Amino acid sequence: MRIDILTLFPELFPGPLGESIIGRAAKNGVISVNAVDVRQFAKDARGTVDEKPYGGGPGMLMIPEVLAEAVESVKGAKSTVILTSPRGEVMNQKLARELAKEEHLILVAGHYEGVDQRFIDLVVDREISIGDFVLSNGNIAAMAIADAVIRLLPGVLGDGESAVEESHSMGLLEYPQYTRPPVFRGVKVPELLLSGDHGKVAEFRKREAERITRERRPDLWEKYLIAELNKEVKK
Amino acid sequence: MRIDILTLFPELFPGPLGESIIGRAAKNGVISVNAVDVRQFAKDARGTVDEKPYGGGPGMLMIPEVLAEAVESVKGAKSTVILTSPRGEVMNQKLARELAKEEHLILVAGHYEGVDQRFIDLVVDREISIGDFVLSNGNIAAMAIADAVIRLLPGVLGDGESAVEESHSMGLLEYPQYTRPPVFRGVKVPELLLSGDHGKVAEFRKREAERITRERRPDLWEKYLIAELNKEVKK
Repeated sequence: MRIDILTLFPELFPGPLGESIIGRAAKNGVISVNAVDVRQFAKDARGTVDEKPYGGGPGMLMIPEVLAEAVESVKGAKSTVILTSPRGEVMNQKLARELAKEEHLILVAGHYEGVDQRFIDLVVDREISIGDFVLSNGNIAAMAIADAVIRLLPGVLGDGESAVEESHSMGLLEYPQYTRPPVFRGVKVPELLLSGDHGKVAEFRKREAERITRERRPDLWEKYLIAELNKEVKK
Repeated sequence: MRIDILTLFPELFPGPLGESIIGRAAKNGVISVNAVDVRQFAKDARGTVDEKPYGGGPGMLMIPEVLAEAVESVKGAKSTVILTSPRGEVMNQKLARELAKEEHLILVAGHYEGVDQRFIDLVVDREISIGDFVLSNGNIAAMAIADAVIRLLPGVLGDGESAVEESHSMGLLEYPQYTRPPVFRGVKVPELLLSGDHGKVAEFRKREAERITRERRPDLWEKYLIAELNKEVKK
């Protein structure tokens, strides 16, 4: 997969996308991440990329022509153009899986105030929001979307790592985990986890994952129950 | 406000937190952002920070003592310790406003596989998730939380910029915006926005914000309607 990130701050990339398992994927050629400096496409010598909004109001908007030409400089027949935007579909694991099937993502890091609507209507395929909070610009959102997608690509996660995904796919929050030492500041690891009884450990983990999901995220818990009931019905 | 970010990748910071309006806030002394290298607190010469989970299973967990000592190296009487975690409260603008009242945030960038539960129970004040998607580690989540909080601090946003916040606080997605040129690739800016009639412009924008919210986010639209009804009842 190729990912182009259109940004006013190209020096921020690869940044987190160059480290850890994502960085390894880039080194192995599974992905290629490339930052495109939007300012290169400005029409004047001063590098103007934004203008005041029609109808008045605070802040500045990205000029449509500048963004469109930046997109077109990297766009191919199989590109999907994504704008990070608080108005977009809310990012989740299902959407990450969907995007992981694409060949080429063009991520446009939105300006904090907004972009011209005609750019969205004519050039953008999807608007995606990482959540109901306001960021100072779209760069961190673009990093989050790219990271969530890249780690799902075949060959990115090792055998051990990929299992993590499965636990989330079940629709439950993760159970509590423990490592050495057996006693930390007076608190012991639950006895059962040291027992070597794999059946009991699995049962404990499932029960705890269910408890935590029920307590913390009634919305996810409800979806999980419905999915479980549907499985029963199909049997 | 002071923000310490505990990470295995200190070179990623300040990164996006050193640019744009957030970077300006750091230069003006409104905030101080500091990365703490967790590996410095490893107990052995090899710098071991993670171990296998008790009870078996894939991946590695952060060792509680290492993380606890990293936190304690920067913790003061008024610190709030936050762990980025898919199990946490889901980040939103209300939570950002709440965190913006704190004096000192310690953000622990979670390991992608997890941390020992005893570290969470004994040292962490809040677990926060940026959304229902899996990231390869907590660094991007820590950046997102820090950015959303910092831009709300007094003196960070200019007069023009701060108004953006108000539009989101109303509970609606943003209306479409337009800037020059008046015709882009054959598509005109809506006539009304060029009219200079401020009342009509305001009415258009409110109607459009309501339409977009209703179409794209029925969940937010429902909350907005209830808030509006409550206002009526209080009159």
